[in-house]
Amino acid sequence: MSEPLYMKVFNTVVQRIVEGSYVPGSMLPSEFDLAGELEVSQGTARKAFIELEQMGIVQRRQGKGTFVTLRTPENSLFHFFRLRDQDGQQVAPELKQESIVLRNALKDEKAALFDTPDKVYEINRLRSFKGAPLCHERSVVPANLFPGLKDRGDLPNALYVLFQHAYSCIIISAQEHLVAETLSDDLAQALDQPKGTPVIVARRQARDLQDRVVELRTSRYLTGATSYFVDLK
Amino acid sequence: MSEPLYMKVFNTVVQRIVEGSYVPGSMLPSEFDLAGELEVSQGTARKAFIELEQMGIVQRRQGKGTFVTLRTPENSLFHFFRLRDQDGQQVAPELKQESIVLRNALKDEKAALFDTPDKVYEINRLRSFKGAPLCHERSVVPANLFPGLKDRGDLPNALYVLFQHAYSCIIISAQEHLVAETLSDDLAQALDQPKGTPVIVARRQARDLQDRVVELRTSRYLTGATSYFVDLK
Repeated sequence: MSEPLYMKVFNTVVQRIVEGSYVPGSMLPSEFDLAGELEVSQGTARKAFIELEQMGIVQRRQGKGTFVTLRTPENSLFHFFRLRDQDGQQVAPELKQESIVLRNALKDEKAALFDTPDKVYEINRLRSFKGAPLCHERSVVPANLFPGLKDRGDLPNALYVLFQHAYSCIIISAQEHLVAETLSDDLAQALDQPKGTPVIVARRQARDLQDRVVELRTSRYLTGATSYFVDLK
Repeated sequence: MSEPLYMKVFNTVVQRIVEGSYVPGSMLPSEFDLAGELEVSQGTARKAFIELEQMGIVQRRQGKGTFVTLRTPENSLFHFFRLRDQDGQQVAPELKQESIVLRNALKDEKAALFDTPDKVYEINRLRSFKGAPLCHERSVVPANLFPGLKDRGDLPNALYVLFQHAYSCIIISAQEHLVAETLSDDLAQALDQPKGTPVIVARRQARDLQDRVVELRTSRYLTGATSYFVDLK
Protein backbone atom coordinates (compact mmCIF):
# COMPACT_ATOMS: atom_id res chain seq x y z
CA MET A 1 0.00 0.00 0.00
CA SER A 2 1.31 3.44 -0.85
CA GLU A 3 1.64 6.30 1.64
CA PRO A 4 -1.68 7.98 2.52
CA LEU A 5 -2.37 11.10 0.48
CA TYR A 6 -2.37 13.45 3.46
CA MET A 7 1.25 12.44 4.13
CA LYS A 8 2.15 14.02 0.81
CA VAL A 9 0.82 17.33 2.13
CA PHE A 10 2.45 16.76 5.52
CA ASN A 11 5.85 16.01 3.99
CA THR A 12 5.64 18.95 1.61
CA VAL A 13 5.02 21.36 4.48
CA VAL A 14 7.87 19.85 6.54
CA GLN A 15 10.21 20.02 3.54
CA ARG A 16 9.38 23.69 2.96
CA ILE A 17 9.99 24.53 6.61
CA VAL A 18 13.34 22.73 6.51
CA GLU A 19 14.35 24.51 3.27
CA GLY A 20 13.29 27.84 4.70
CA SER A 21 10.45 28.62 2.27
CA TYR A 22 8.08 28.57 5.25
CA VAL A 23 9.80 30.56 7.99
CA PRO A 24 9.05 29.84 11.68
CA GLY A 25 6.47 32.34 12.89
CA SER A 26 5.04 32.95 9.41
CA MET A 27 1.56 32.05 8.21
CA LEU A 28 1.04 28.97 6.03
CA PRO A 29 -1.12 29.03 2.90
CA SER A 30 -4.74 28.13 3.72
CA GLU A 31 -5.89 24.52 3.55
CA PHE A 32 -7.88 25.52 0.49
CA ASP A 33 -4.90 27.03 -1.36
CA LEU A 34 -2.51 24.24 -0.44
CA ALA A 35 -5.07 21.61 -1.45
CA GLY A 36 -5.38 23.34 -4.83
CA GLU A 37 -1.65 23.59 -5.34
CA LEU A 38 -1.01 19.95 -4.44
CA GLU A 39 -4.13 18.67 -6.17
CA VAL A 40 -5.70 16.98 -3.18
CA SER A 41 -9.08 17.49 -1.52
CA GLN A 42 -9.46 20.12 1.18
CA GLY A 43 -10.28 17.29 3.62
CA THR A 44 -6.90 15.72 2.88
CA ALA A 45 -5.12 19.02 3.47
CA ARG A 46 -7.07 19.43 6.71
CA LYS A 47 -5.95 16.01 7.90
CA ALA A 48 -2.32 16.96 7.25
CA PHE A 49 -2.78 20.25 9.12
CA ILE A 50 -4.29 18.43 12.11
CA GLU A 51 -1.32 16.04 12.15
CA LEU A 52 1.14 18.95 11.84
CA GLU A 53 -0.58 20.70 14.71
CA GLN A 54 -0.61 17.62 16.93
CA MET A 55 3.12 17.28 16.42
CA GLY A 56 3.66 20.90 17.40
CA ILE A 57 5.03 21.81 13.97
CA VAL A 58 2.32 24.38 13.29
CA GLN A 59 -0.15 26.27 15.43
CA ARG A 60 -3.66 27.30 14.48
CA ARG A 61 -4.92 30.63 15.68
CA GLN A 62 -8.68 30.92 15.64
CA GLY A 63 -9.86 33.27 12.89
CA LYS A 64 -6.29 34.12 11.84
CA GLY A 65 -4.74 31.13 10.14
CA THR A 66 -2.09 28.48 10.65
CA PHE A 67 1.45 29.46 11.59
CA VAL A 68 4.80 27.67 11.60
CA THR A 69 5.70 27.15 15.25
CA LEU A 70 8.37 29.58 16.33
CA ARG A 71 10.66 28.41 19.11
CA THR A 72 11.52 31.50 21.05
CA PRO A 73 14.09 31.44 23.86
CA GLU A 74 11.16 31.50 26.31
CA ASN A 75 9.01 28.67 25.01
CA SER A 76 11.88 26.51 23.81
CA LEU A 77 13.73 26.45 27.09
CA PHE A 78 10.64 25.29 28.90
CA HIS A 79 9.26 22.97 26.28
CA PHE A 80 11.50 20.06 27.18
CA PHE A 81 12.52 21.16 30.66
CA ARG A 82 10.30 19.51 33.22
CA LEU A 83 11.67 20.71 36.53
CA ARG A 84 9.21 22.35 38.91
CA ASP A 85 9.87 24.18 42.14
CA GLN A 86 8.20 23.36 45.45
CA ASP A 87 5.16 25.46 44.56
CA GLY A 88 4.71 23.47 41.35
CA GLN A 89 5.98 26.35 39.16
CA GLN A 90 8.21 25.86 36.11
CA VAL A 91 11.85 26.35 37.02
CA ALA A 92 13.73 28.91 34.92
CA PRO A 93 17.35 27.78 35.17
CA GLU A 94 20.33 30.08 34.77
CA LEU A 95 23.41 29.14 32.79
CA LYS A 96 26.53 29.30 34.98
CA GLN A 97 29.32 27.71 33.01
CA GLU A 98 29.86 26.05 29.68
CA SER A 99 32.51 24.42 27.55
CA ILE A 100 32.45 22.91 24.08
CA VAL A 101 34.85 20.53 22.37
CA LEU A 102 35.05 18.81 19.01
CA ARG A 103 35.95 15.14 19.42
CA ASN A 104 35.57 11.66 17.93
CA ALA A 105 32.17 10.07 18.44
CA LEU A 106 32.02 7.16 20.87
CA LYS A 107 30.68 3.92 19.47
CA ASP A 108 27.27 4.29 21.18
CA GLU A 109 26.95 7.90 20.07
CA LYS A 110 27.76 7.03 16.49
CA ALA A 111 25.15 4.27 16.53
CA ALA A 112 22.42 6.47 18.02
CA LEU A 113 22.92 9.78 16.19
CA PHE A 114 21.71 10.64 12.69
CA ASP A 115 24.13 9.84 9.89
CA THR A 116 26.52 7.83 12.14
CA PRO A 117 28.89 10.80 12.61
CA ASP A 118 32.63 10.36 13.12
CA LYS A 119 32.95 13.73 14.83
CA VAL A 120 30.68 15.30 17.44
CA TYR A 121 30.53 18.46 19.49
CA GLU A 122 30.27 17.86 23.21
CA ILE A 123 28.78 20.74 25.17
CA ASN A 124 28.99 20.67 28.95
CA ARG A 125 26.94 23.10 30.98
CA LEU A 126 26.25 23.82 34.62
CA ARG A 127 22.94 25.44 35.52
CA SER A 128 21.68 26.99 38.71
CA PHE A 129 18.31 28.03 40.09
CA LYS A 130 17.92 31.04 42.40
CA GLY A 131 21.67 31.06 42.89
CA ALA A 132 21.98 27.40 43.95
CA PRO A 133 23.49 24.65 41.74
CA LEU A 134 20.76 22.79 39.84
CA CYS A 135 22.15 20.48 37.17
CA HIS A 136 24.88 19.39 34.84
CA GLU A 137 24.02 18.84 31.18
CA ARG A 138 26.08 17.15 28.50
CA SER A 139 24.85 17.52 24.92
CA VAL A 140 26.42 15.57 22.08
CA VAL A 141 25.55 16.56 18.50
CA PRO A 142 26.87 15.51 15.06
CA ALA A 143 29.57 18.00 13.98
CA ASN A 144 28.46 17.86 10.34
CA LEU A 145 24.98 19.11 11.17
CA PHE A 146 26.20 22.11 13.15
CA PRO A 147 29.29 23.48 11.37
CA GLY A 148 31.21 26.08 13.35
CA LEU A 149 29.27 25.49 16.57
CA LYS A 150 32.49 25.65 18.57
CA ASP A 151 33.47 29.05 17.17
CA ARG A 152 30.28 30.99 17.88
CA GLY A 153 31.36 32.22 21.30
CA ASP A 154 28.91 31.79 24.18
CA LEU A 155 25.93 29.63 23.26
CA PRO A 156 22.42 30.75 24.20
CA ASN A 157 20.66 29.40 27.27
CA ALA A 158 18.26 27.46 25.01
CA LEU A 159 20.36 25.47 22.57
CA TYR A 160 17.37 24.43 20.44
CA VAL A 161 16.65 28.04 19.51
CA LEU A 162 20.16 28.31 18.07
CA PHE A 163 19.73 25.00 16.24
CA GLN A 164 16.60 26.37 14.62
CA HIS A 165 17.75 29.87 13.75
CA ALA A 166 21.32 29.16 12.70
CA TYR A 167 21.00 25.61 11.35
CA SER A 168 17.31 25.19 10.32
CA CYS A 169 17.21 22.20 12.63
CA ILE A 170 13.92 22.13 14.48
CA ILE A 171 13.68 19.84 17.50
CA ILE A 172 10.15 18.59 17.93
CA SER A 173 10.30 15.60 20.24
CA ALA A 174 12.50 13.95 22.81
CA GLN A 175 12.45 10.69 24.70
CA GLU A 176 14.01 10.52 28.12
CA HIS A 177 14.99 7.56 30.25
CA LEU A 178 15.42 8.48 33.90
CA VAL A 179 17.54 6.63 36.41
CA ALA A 180 18.86 7.42 39.90
CA GLU A 181 22.59 7.73 40.55
CA THR A 182 24.92 9.28 43.07
CA LEU A 183 27.19 12.08 41.85
CA SER A 184 30.74 11.22 40.84
CA ASP A 185 33.40 13.04 42.85
CA ASP A 186 34.15 15.37 39.92
CA LEU A 187 30.55 16.39 39.44
CA ALA A 188 29.93 16.64 43.19
CA GLN A 189 32.76 19.17 43.29
CA ALA A 190 31.52 21.05 40.21
CA LEU A 191 28.01 21.27 41.65
CA ASP A 192 29.29 22.05 45.14
CA GLN A 193 27.54 19.04 46.72
CA PRO A 194 28.63 16.41 49.25
CA LYS A 195 30.03 13.20 47.79
CA GLY A 196 27.35 10.62 47.13
CA THR A 197 24.52 13.12 46.62
CA PRO A 198 21.68 11.35 44.73
CA VAL A 199 20.58 12.80 41.38
CA ILE A 200 18.08 12.01 38.67
CA VAL A 201 19.95 11.23 35.46
CA ALA A 202 17.87 11.94 32.34
CA ARG A 203 19.23 10.41 29.13
CA ARG A 204 17.58 12.09 26.17
CA GLN A 205 17.38 11.45 22.46
CA ALA A 206 16.10 14.59 20.72
CA ARG A 207 14.52 14.36 17.26
CA ASP A 208 14.07 17.02 14.63
CA LEU A 209 11.27 17.67 12.14
CA GLN A 210 12.53 14.88 9.91
CA ASP A 211 12.55 12.47 12.86
CA ARG A 212 16.34 12.30 12.90
CA VAL A 213 18.13 11.86 16.27
CA VAL A 214 20.24 15.00 16.31
CA GLU A 215 21.18 15.27 19.97
CA LEU A 216 22.04 12.96 22.85
CA ARG A 217 21.74 14.75 26.15
CA THR A 218 22.55 13.55 29.64
CA SER A 219 21.27 15.80 32.42
CA ARG A 220 21.97 15.26 36.11
CA TYR A 221 19.43 17.02 38.30
CA LEU A 222 19.77 17.85 41.97
CA THR A 223 16.28 17.51 43.39
CA GLY A 224 16.59 19.12 46.80
CA ALA A 225 14.53 22.17 45.84
CA THR A 226 12.95 20.94 42.60
CA SER A 227 11.30 17.87 41.12
CA TYR A 228 10.84 16.40 37.65
CA PHE A 229 7.16 16.67 36.75
CA VAL A 230 5.24 14.06 34.75
CA ASP A 231 1.56 14.25 33.79
CA LEU A 232 0.12 10.76 33.24
CA LYS A 233 -3.11 10.54 31.33
CA MET B 1 -21.14 32.72 31.38
CA SER B 2 -22.81 29.38 31.84
CA GLU B 3 -21.14 26.04 31.24
CA PRO B 4 -20.83 25.10 27.54
CA LEU B 5 -23.63 22.83 26.34
CA TYR B 6 -21.34 19.90 25.48
CA MET B 7 -20.27 19.77 29.13
CA LYS B 8 -23.87 18.87 29.97
CA VAL B 9 -23.50 15.79 27.79
CA PHE B 10 -20.01 15.09 29.13
CA ASN B 11 -21.15 15.30 32.75
CA THR B 12 -24.22 13.16 32.11
CA VAL B 13 -22.09 10.38 30.65
CA VAL B 14 -19.60 10.58 33.52
CA GLN B 15 -22.43 10.55 36.06
CA ARG B 16 -23.99 7.47 34.48
CA ILE B 17 -20.65 5.64 34.48
CA VAL B 18 -20.15 6.49 38.14
CA GLU B 19 -23.69 5.35 39.04
CA GLY B 20 -23.22 2.16 37.08
CA SER B 21 -25.89 2.72 34.39
CA TYR B 22 -23.09 2.66 31.81
CA VAL B 23 -20.87 -0.28 32.72
CA PRO B 24 -17.15 -0.30 31.75
CA GLY B 25 -16.74 -2.27 28.54
CA SER B 26 -20.32 -1.65 27.39
CA MET B 27 -21.41 0.39 24.37
CA LEU B 28 -22.73 3.92 24.83
CA PRO B 29 -25.85 5.15 23.05
CA SER B 30 -24.99 6.72 19.69
CA GLU B 31 -24.27 10.45 19.45
CA PHE B 32 -27.57 10.74 17.62
CA ASP B 33 -29.61 9.01 20.33
CA LEU B 34 -27.90 10.79 23.20
CA ALA B 35 -28.31 14.15 21.47
CA GLY B 36 -32.02 13.41 21.08
CA GLU B 37 -32.45 12.35 24.70
CA LEU B 38 -30.61 15.38 26.09
CA GLU B 39 -32.09 17.78 23.55
CA VAL B 40 -28.81 19.04 22.13
CA SER B 41 -27.50 19.04 18.56
CA GLN B 42 -25.56 16.04 17.30
CA GLY B 43 -22.51 18.30 16.92
CA THR B 44 -22.69 19.08 20.63
CA ALA B 45 -22.90 15.38 21.49
CA ARG B 46 -19.96 14.73 19.17
CA LYS B 47 -17.87 17.38 20.95
CA ALA B 48 -18.60 15.71 24.29
CA PHE B 49 -17.66 12.30 22.87
CA ILE B 50 -14.37 13.68 21.54
CA GLU B 51 -13.58 15.15 24.95
CA LEU B 52 -14.52 11.88 26.68
CA GLU B 53 -12.28 9.98 24.30
CA GLN B 54 -9.33 12.35 24.76
CA MET B 55 -9.60 11.85 28.51
CA GLY B 56 -9.56 8.08 28.06
CA ILE B 57 -13.05 7.70 29.53
CA VAL B 58 -14.49 6.14 26.38
CA GLN B 59 -12.99 4.50 23.31
CA ARG B 60 -14.33 4.66 19.79
CA ARG B 61 -14.09 1.57 17.64
CA GLN B 62 -14.37 2.28 13.95
CA GLY B 63 -17.68 1.05 12.56
CA LYS B 64 -18.77 -0.42 15.89
CA GLY B 65 -19.56 2.39 18.30
CA THR B 66 -18.27 4.07 21.43
CA PHE B 67 -17.46 2.01 24.52
CA VAL B 68 -16.86 2.84 28.17
CA THR B 69 -13.16 2.23 28.78
CA LEU B 70 -12.60 -0.96 30.67
CA ARG B 71 -9.54 -1.09 32.84
CA THR B 72 -8.43 -4.66 32.75
CA PRO B 73 -5.58 -5.92 34.92
CA GLU B 74 -3.38 -5.79 31.82
CA ASN B 75 -3.99 -2.29 30.56
CA SER B 76 -4.45 -0.71 33.98
CA LEU B 77 -1.22 -1.92 35.44
CA PHE B 78 0.73 -0.48 32.56
CA HIS B 79 -1.26 2.66 32.05
CA PHE B 80 0.46 4.57 34.82
CA PHE B 81 3.55 2.44 35.17
CA ARG B 82 6.39 3.93 33.18
CA LEU B 83 9.32 1.64 33.88
CA ARG B 84 11.08 0.17 30.86
CA ASP B 85 13.75 -2.49 30.73
CA GLN B 86 17.09 -2.10 28.99
CA ASP B 87 15.57 -3.03 25.63
CA GLY B 88 12.98 -0.28 26.00
CA GLN B 89 10.16 -2.76 26.74
CA GLN B 90 7.42 -2.15 29.30
CA VAL B 91 8.29 -3.78 32.61
CA ALA B 92 5.65 -6.15 34.03
CA PRO B 93 6.34 -6.11 37.76
CA GLU B 94 5.44 -8.94 40.11
CA LEU B 95 3.91 -8.38 43.53
CA LYS B 96 6.09 -9.88 46.26
CA GLN B 97 4.73 -8.65 49.55
CA GLU B 98 1.97 -6.43 50.81
CA SER B 99 0.45 -5.07 53.98
CA ILE B 100 -2.51 -2.81 54.65
CA VAL B 101 -3.44 -0.80 57.73
CA LEU B 102 -6.23 1.58 58.69
CA ARG B 103 -4.84 4.67 60.41
CA ASN B 104 -5.38 8.38 61.03
CA ALA B 105 -4.59 10.62 58.08
CA LEU B 106 -1.50 12.79 58.41
CA LYS B 107 -2.06 16.53 58.04
CA ASP B 108 -0.64 16.64 54.48
CA GLU B 109 -2.67 13.62 53.41
CA LYS B 110 -5.87 15.11 54.79
CA ALA B 111 -5.20 18.35 52.93
CA ALA B 112 -4.43 16.64 49.61
CA LEU B 113 -7.04 13.87 49.48
CA PHE B 114 -10.69 14.23 48.45
CA ASP B 115 -13.10 15.03 51.27
CA THR B 116 -10.30 15.73 53.83
CA PRO B 117 -10.54 12.23 55.35
CA ASP B 118 -9.79 11.55 59.02
CA LYS B 119 -9.00 7.89 58.33
CA VAL B 120 -6.98 6.39 55.49
CA TYR B 121 -5.85 2.97 54.36
CA GLU B 122 -2.10 2.69 53.87
CA ILE B 123 -1.03 -0.09 51.53
CA ASN B 124 2.65 -1.00 51.36
CA ARG B 125 3.89 -3.23 48.58
CA LEU B 126 7.18 -4.62 47.37
CA ARG B 127 7.51 -5.46 43.70
CA SER B 128 10.13 -7.37 41.78
CA PHE B 129 11.06 -7.81 38.13
CA LYS B 130 12.48 -11.07 36.79
CA GLY B 131 13.08 -12.19 40.34
CA ALA B 132 15.07 -9.11 41.42
CA PRO B 133 13.72 -6.41 43.77
CA LEU B 134 12.27 -3.48 41.80
CA CYS B 135 10.37 -1.04 43.97
CA HIS B 136 8.50 -0.17 47.11
CA GLU B 137 5.08 1.47 46.78
CA ARG B 138 3.02 3.16 49.45
CA SER B 139 -0.58 4.00 48.55
CA VAL B 140 -2.74 6.12 50.83
CA VAL B 141 -6.49 6.30 50.12
CA PRO B 142 -9.47 7.76 52.00
CA ALA B 143 -11.07 4.99 54.11
CA ASN B 144 -14.60 6.28 53.45
CA LEU B 145 -14.25 5.82 49.70
CA PHE B 146 -13.07 2.23 49.96
CA PRO B 147 -15.04 0.56 52.79
CA GLY B 148 -13.74 -2.86 53.80
CA LEU B 149 -10.54 -2.56 51.74
CA LYS B 150 -8.53 -4.04 54.60
CA ASP B 151 -10.73 -7.13 54.86
CA ARG B 152 -10.67 -8.29 51.25
CA GLY B 153 -7.66 -10.55 51.62
CA ASP B 154 -4.87 -10.20 49.07
CA LEU B 155 -5.31 -7.18 46.83
CA PRO B 156 -4.81 -7.54 43.07
CA ASN B 157 -1.56 -6.55 41.40
CA ALA B 158 -3.32 -3.59 39.78
CA LEU B 159 -5.07 -1.67 42.54
CA TYR B 160 -6.97 0.59 40.12
CA VAL B 161 -8.83 -2.37 38.65
CA LEU B 162 -10.16 -3.18 42.12
CA PHE B 163 -11.07 0.47 42.69
CA GLN B 164 -13.11 0.40 39.50
CA HIS B 165 -14.82 -2.95 39.87
CA ALA B 166 -15.52 -2.98 43.60
CA TYR B 167 -15.91 0.75 44.28
CA SER B 168 -16.93 2.35 40.93
CA CYS B 169 -13.93 4.63 41.32
CA ILE B 170 -12.24 5.08 37.96
CA ILE B 171 -8.74 6.56 37.98
CA ILE B 172 -8.14 8.55 34.82
CA SER B 173 -5.11 10.75 35.46
CA ALA B 174 -2.14 11.09 37.72
CA GLN B 175 0.55 13.68 38.28
CA GLU B 176 3.94 12.60 39.48
CA HIS B 177 6.81 14.58 40.93
CA LEU B 178 10.11 12.73 40.75
CA VAL B 179 13.10 13.28 42.99
CA ALA B 180 16.30 11.35 43.71
CA GLU B 181 16.97 9.92 47.16
CA THR B 182 19.07 7.24 48.77
CA LEU B 183 17.23 4.34 50.41
CA SER B 184 16.61 4.46 54.14
CA ASP B 185 18.20 1.57 56.07
CA ASP B 186 14.79 -0.10 56.50
CA LEU B 187 13.92 0.01 52.82
CA ALA B 188 17.45 -0.97 51.79
CA GLN B 189 16.99 -4.10 53.89
CA ALA B 190 13.47 -4.79 52.55
CA LEU B 191 14.68 -4.42 48.97
CA ASP B 192 17.90 -6.33 49.66
CA GLN B 193 20.14 -3.45 48.54
CA PRO B 194 23.31 -1.90 49.98
CA LYS B 195 22.79 1.09 52.25
CA GLY B 196 22.73 4.38 50.38
CA THR B 197 21.48 2.90 47.10
CA PRO B 198 20.03 5.76 44.98
CA VAL B 199 16.37 5.52 43.92
CA ILE B 200 13.87 7.58 41.97
CA VAL B 201 11.06 8.59 44.28
CA ALA B 202 7.79 9.24 42.42
CA ARG B 203 5.14 11.09 44.43
CA ARG B 204 1.80 10.67 42.74
CA GLN B 205 -1.62 12.23 43.07
CA ALA B 206 -4.17 10.07 41.25
CA ARG B 207 -7.51 11.53 40.15
CA ASP B 208 -10.77 9.81 39.33
CA LEU B 209 -13.45 10.51 36.73
CA GLN B 210 -14.83 13.33 38.85
CA ASP B 211 -11.34 14.87 39.16
CA ARG B 212 -11.11 14.01 42.84
CA VAL B 213 -7.69 13.17 44.33
CA VAL B 214 -8.39 9.66 45.61
CA GLU B 215 -4.89 8.28 46.08
CA LEU B 216 -1.47 9.51 47.16
CA ARG B 217 1.23 7.11 46.11
CA THR B 218 4.94 7.16 46.82
CA SER B 219 6.98 4.72 44.75
CA ARG B 220 10.69 4.14 45.19
CA TYR B 221 12.26 2.63 42.08
CA LEU B 222 15.59 0.87 41.83
CA THR B 223 16.92 1.76 38.40
CA GLY B 224 19.79 -0.65 37.96
CA ALA B 225 18.00 -2.75 35.32
CA THR B 226 15.14 -0.38 34.44
CA SER B 227 14.47 3.28 33.75
CA TYR B 228 11.48 5.62 34.02
CA PHE B 229 10.42 6.54 30.50
CA VAL B 230 9.11 9.98 29.47
CA ASP B 231 8.01 10.99 25.99
CA LEU B 232 8.35 14.76 25.51
CA LYS B 233 6.44 16.28 22.63
